[in-house]
Amino acid sequence: MRKINIGIIGMGRIGRIHADNLLRDPQAALVAISDPYAGEELREWAAARGIAIADSDALLDDPAIDAVFICSSTDTHVPFIKRAAANGKHIFCEKPVSMDLSATEEALEAVRIAGVQLQVGFNRRFDHNFKRVRDHVLEGSAGEPHMIRITSRDPAPPPADYIKVSGGIYMDMMIHDFDMARYLSGREVEEVFAQGAVLVDPVFAAHGDVDTAIVTLRFEGGALGVIDCSRRAAYGYDQRAEVFGSGGSVAAANDYPNTAVVATKEGVRSDKPLHFFLERYNGAYIEETRQFIDCLLNGTPVPVSGEDAYRAERIALASKLSAKYKRIVKLSDLDSLREGM
Amino acid sequence: MRKINIGIIGMGRIGRIHADNLLRDPQAALVAISDPYAGEELREWAAARGIAIADSDALLDDPAIDAVFICSSTDTHVPFIKRAAANGKHIFCEKPVSMDLSATEEALEAVRIAGVQLQVGFNRRFDHNFKRVRDHVLEGSAGEPHMIRITSRDPAPPPADYIKVSGGIYMDMMIHDFDMARYLSGREVEEVFAQGAVLVDPVFAAHGDVDTAIVTLRFEGGALGVIDCSRRAAYGYDQRAEVFGSGGSVAAANDYPNTAVVATKEGVRSDKPLHFFLERYNGAYIEETRQFIDCLLNGTPVPVSGEDAYRAERIALASKLSAKYKRIVKLSDLDSLREGM
Amino acid sequence: MRKINIGIIGMGRIGRIHADNLLRDPQAALVAISDPYAGEELREWAAARGIAIADSDALLDDPAIDAVFICSSTDTHVPFIKRAAANGKHIFCEKPVSMDLSATEEALEAVRIAGVQLQVGFNRRFDHNFKRVRDHVLEGSAGEPHMIRITSRDPAPPPADYIKVSGGIYMDMMIHDFDMARYLSGREVEEVFAQGAVLVDPVFAAHGDVDTAIVTLRFEGGALGVIDCSRRAAYGYDQRAEVFGSGGSVAAANDYPNTAVVATKEGVRSDKPLHFFLERYNGAYIEETRQFIDCLLNGTPVPVSGEDAYRAERIALASKLSAKYKRIVKLSDLDSLREGM
Amino acid sequence: MRKINIGIIGMGRIGRIHADNLLRDPQAALVAISDPYAGEELREWAAARGIAIADSDALLDDPAIDAVFICSSTDTHVPFIKRAAANGKHIFCEKPVSMDLSATEEALEAVRIAGVQLQVGFNRRFDHNFKRVRDHVLEGSAGEPHMIRITSRDPAPPPADYIKVSGGIYMDMMIHDFDMARYLSGREVEEVFAQGAVLVDPVFAAHGDVDTAIVTLRFEGGALGVIDCSRRAAYGYDQRAEVFGSGGSVAAANDYPNTAVVATKEGVRSDKPLHFFLERYNGAYIEETRQFIDCLLNGTPVPVSGEDAYRAERIALASKLSAKYKRIVKLSDLDSLREGM
Repeated sequence: MRKINIGIIGMGRIGRIHADNLLRDPQAALVAISDPYAGEELREWAAARGIAIADSDALLDDPAIDAVFICSSTDTHVPFIKRAAANGKHIFCEKPVSMDLSATEEALEAVRIAGVQLQVGFNRRFDHNFKRVRDHVLEGSAGEPHMIRITSRDPAPPPADYIKVSGGIYMDMMIHDFDMARYLSGREVEEVFAQGAVLVDPVFAAHGDVDTAIVTLRFEGGALGVIDCSRRAAYGYDQRAEVFGSGGSVAAANDYPNTAVVATKEGVRSDKPLHFFLERYNGAYIEETRQFIDCLLNGTPVPVSGEDAYRAERIALASKLSAKYKRIVKLSDLDSLREGM
Repeated sequence: MRKINIGIIGMGRIGRIHADNLLRDPQAALVAISDPYAGEELREWAAARGIAIADSDALLDDPAIDAVFICSSTDTHVPFIKRAAANGKHIFCEKPVSMDLSATEEALEAVRIAGVQLQVGFNRRFDHNFKRVRDHVLEGSAGEPHMIRITSRDPAPPPADYIKVSGGIYMDMMIHDFDMARYLSGREVEEVFAQGAVLVDPVFAAHGDVDTAIVTLRFEGGALGVIDCSRRAAYGYDQRAEVFGSGGSVAAANDYPNTAVVATKEGVRSDKPLHFFLERYNGAYIEETRQFIDCLLNGTPVPVSGEDAYRAERIALASKLSAKYKRIVKLSDLDSLREGM
Repeated sequence: MRKINIGIIGMGRIGRIHADNLLRDPQAALVAISDPYAGEELREWAAARGIAIADSDALLDDPAIDAVFICSSTDTHVPFIKRAAANGKHIFCEKPVSMDLSATEEALEAVRIAGVQLQVGFNRRFDHNFKRVRDHVLEGSAGEPHMIRITSRDPAPPPADYIKVSGGIYMDMMIHDFDMARYLSGREVEEVFAQGAVLVDPVFAAHGDVDTAIVTLRFEGGALGVIDCSRRAAYGYDQRAEVFGSGGSVAAANDYPNTAVVATKEGVRSDKPLHFFLERYNGAYIEETRQFIDCLLNGTPVPVSGEDAYRAERIALASKLSAKYKRIVKLSDLDSLREGM
Repeated sequence: MRKINIGIIGMGRIGRIHADNLLRDPQAALVAISDPYAGEELREWAAARGIAIADSDALLDDPAIDAVFICSSTDTHVPFIKRAAANGKHIFCEKPVSMDLSATEEALEAVRIAGVQLQVGFNRRFDHNFKRVRDHVLEGSAGEPHMIRITSRDPAPPPADYIKVSGGIYMDMMIHDFDMARYLSGREVEEVFAQGAVLVDPVFAAHGDVDTAIVTLRFEGGALGVIDCSRRAAYGYDQRAEVFGSGGSVAAANDYPNTAVVATKEGVRSDKPLHFFLERYNGAYIEETRQFIDCLLNGTPVPVSGEDAYRAERIALASKLSAKYKRIVKLSDLDSLREGM
């Protein structure tokens, strides 16, 4: 059985998830990892599994490696993509490719010229719930889409250090929702209007960011959309979506750790939703990796392209500008607005 | 518009419910009531509405009355039915007709000879949930029934005075469930097995009764059934049913006072089910009265017959004997067993 | 027992609902009705109940009448309110009071001067679900509100004749939602942004209206809100709301006609939500009338004031302007913008 | 890191599940397997993973093996347990240990003498839903248990060949439910009453078996229980349980593949429950293996003992006799009844 030889750059939380899933995928061989902060624990872990530890350049130049997972900090994505592409390696890159649209364009161009595949880490497309909504929409259960509603709330804000470099709520957190809006509706976004507020923690204001936001979308063809987003839901991770259309509604609710319900004289109660993305999207991460490997082996296009990343980044940037200028931003005006940033 | 002139005998809790519903029914005229315990409040209530107060014999003999509602204590049902029938009045009688099968048989015979209509107060047949289950079963959604499951739990036991004369859990409380089993399955019960326990309050044991019971049923044609029953559910009234068959399952859950759900860091919570029969079966009581009046006006058979009451009473008695003798009781053996009681 | 003598002006669909509820309210006496289109059926209905039929002026001048229900077309509300107030009658008026803020201001001024009570028909405040959400919010279950989400979808658009004079989706349909946003959050709206689309029926475009809209709100203190609205949901009436805050979420789902669930090899299915406002808000209409009468008898302030109507109308107007000018509208800028209309 | 060396006997469906889970458990080393029907595919699978293939005696005698998983046909369990115990190996054995109580007693005695550990494959104890119900019961959420209700329905009957040797519905299928009844209630069963019917397929009757059964239980201390069981639910695997007690109810519903809900003019629909045990109990199998290995490494008692297996087998046998003799069977009378079999 042929296997894809994989190297991972960046062994933080998300890199470790991919590593674990690749180790269990019979079509993948994880041969090398790279992390400037690799400590004793990671070295032992790699040694026990026969995985080499290399610096990123060595890994990207290693002819034995077929594909790389780029899980390092966002500012390194574009140079790593370019080097990997130049070396003919297929690429899985975490989102966003970049916070700078021009850099993303360059990265996509490098990929295109090299003829390699690039999959971007929009893991939620592989979630059993959202996947099922999308299938229903494609089957026509909701008819022609009229409104897309997405709820996206994290259980707790990231640390202040991260907030500073996160790119802001629209690029860091809602980029997933912008992709989901495109995925569920099957339509491109034409204009956005964003409202933000600092209600969770003043630290966001200190970094020019917000922690609560509602973004309204208008899709090509006229359908509307709305995403409500918060950095902190007391009850945990809240990830829901609805497509409403001429034929009805298709909606996905949250996942829960169990179905146990307690009824007493005080009322009826049950447990909170699955806590965070590691729990909720566990299966989605496995599936996104599996499909990436599968496409490489079969020579078929990967399910989430660089173009998908680029389009979500454009919506994120438009939202940021909309919030800044307190007005509607058309995606078609984005390029002229960018110049004025 | 022709109206049916109605008299009610027994103005306790259930009599008052019917009175209120009859007053709102444009096809009914409540003309007289009778209650040996009628106090000042009831007299004023009647006077304000132009309703006569009579003794039961006078009411039953009054030629201006077309139909009577018998809502007095169970031991008076049969004599009142006989007198009403002899006077050509149609009858609505609360359940059970009697705790003595022979007396019920006599009452039904009197009704048959007089050619009047008799409807029995199995109000749950008119509940929106159970009615919908029944409709699904008739449409074949569940296929051929294999198992019927009924849960029947009260929020709190009745007072000790009532327990003494209630006829026991099988005749007093589960008779509704036995009727529901026939109604939902569309089948007659052939044998029963009853297990009882005193777990809620020792007062039940003091009166030779139980407060918790599970009755297993076997229907003609082979389907099985099970009813679980308790005199006390801490969370309120619990009334559920399921028909499981070759094609699948049709199940009705409880009703709740609202759909509000609260999610916090402690979990997810909502309110208890509707508290008791007045709340849960409010609409069912209105509908059972409406249909009774409608059938009298149209000369069509009433939706719950004396035969339905008799058959439920037989199952109740068989269950009582099963619990007593700790064995299966076939309904066909009931008559010989009754002799031995 | 003292009763409030009531006259109703306008016996269309909503006037009939109030009439039926008033007839069942022991504290109210419906003594007169008025409707320029009163036909034979209505005359017989009134005669059978001893209710006089009068013209509107006569009714408003009749000293025997304590309070009037104004259920006629919106353009008649203000003159009727003024005349009723001048005659010292308490007033229940359907929403909106007027589509012209100045006219509403005049009506409220007349009510203030006369010292009568004015309740406006925001029936949804009396819905068991939304009432429960509000109670939870007041108890602090959601903590400090961060986002309010309201879904408001009708089962089918009104007739074209009505669309023409409806005042548009924001004033006709969403005015209920604007009131709900204030009611659930306990906060005033400071600015709005509205996006509309014609996706259901081009007839809306022909009248300068839309059939699909998303309105984003910003409340005093910084909380955000969003209302999504459609004139046509294939599955019926969709009325949901959520208050999300620092402590969690409180959400109300739709009501359904029954709890029956069918599971077969094809999947799991159940019935659609209650079809429309008559079914969903049946209990709310009864309760809003009951509380109005109760307040008049007890001399306490009515639960929904003219001020509530005025504020919702201002939000509706701001939304209309926002959609027109494609920009945020601050409520504080409304007066200057109105001049430019 | 110390690892437990494991051998598996019997590589059918359930053996393969355990093998896959052991391969992913960092504390386990799967070193050998044995299967008389091992074909080319299994040999390749083992070779690729460095797992030896041995005959069962060789495997059981191999001093390098710490523990064995006995996943072969039920008639081989007891001899394999005895040989493994004699060789000082710890044992994981699928349920039931045996269909003959005396043989089970002998096996347990051998285990006791050898001082090894024996865990029995009651996987449902490790299900997230039932585990949560049990935790709630232990925390007292339901108060003192009054009734235990279990629903246990398979999506489709096993092949006729299997039915013949299955031991019948009580021993083959309901043994899981008998264990669940003990697990959830924390109480021993004192008497049973079983009703069976052949409603799914006459092949069951041909083998003296039934395909539909309701078993009523009485626990020590007086609580009641009921299990309803079917070999075929059209909508898939149905595994629910409820503990009802003095403080309320704790209930677990089924698991579903996703939360997507579609609402159209036809109604509301969603997908069927997870199809069968491989899907529903996937996590439970992983957890039961993990805990077994963990207990061996830590020298703590395994979570499901041979005694648990024995007690469930006694309830199964009592149920079989109850159905046969159509009467209550007390567990304390089982030994005298066995003699008469």
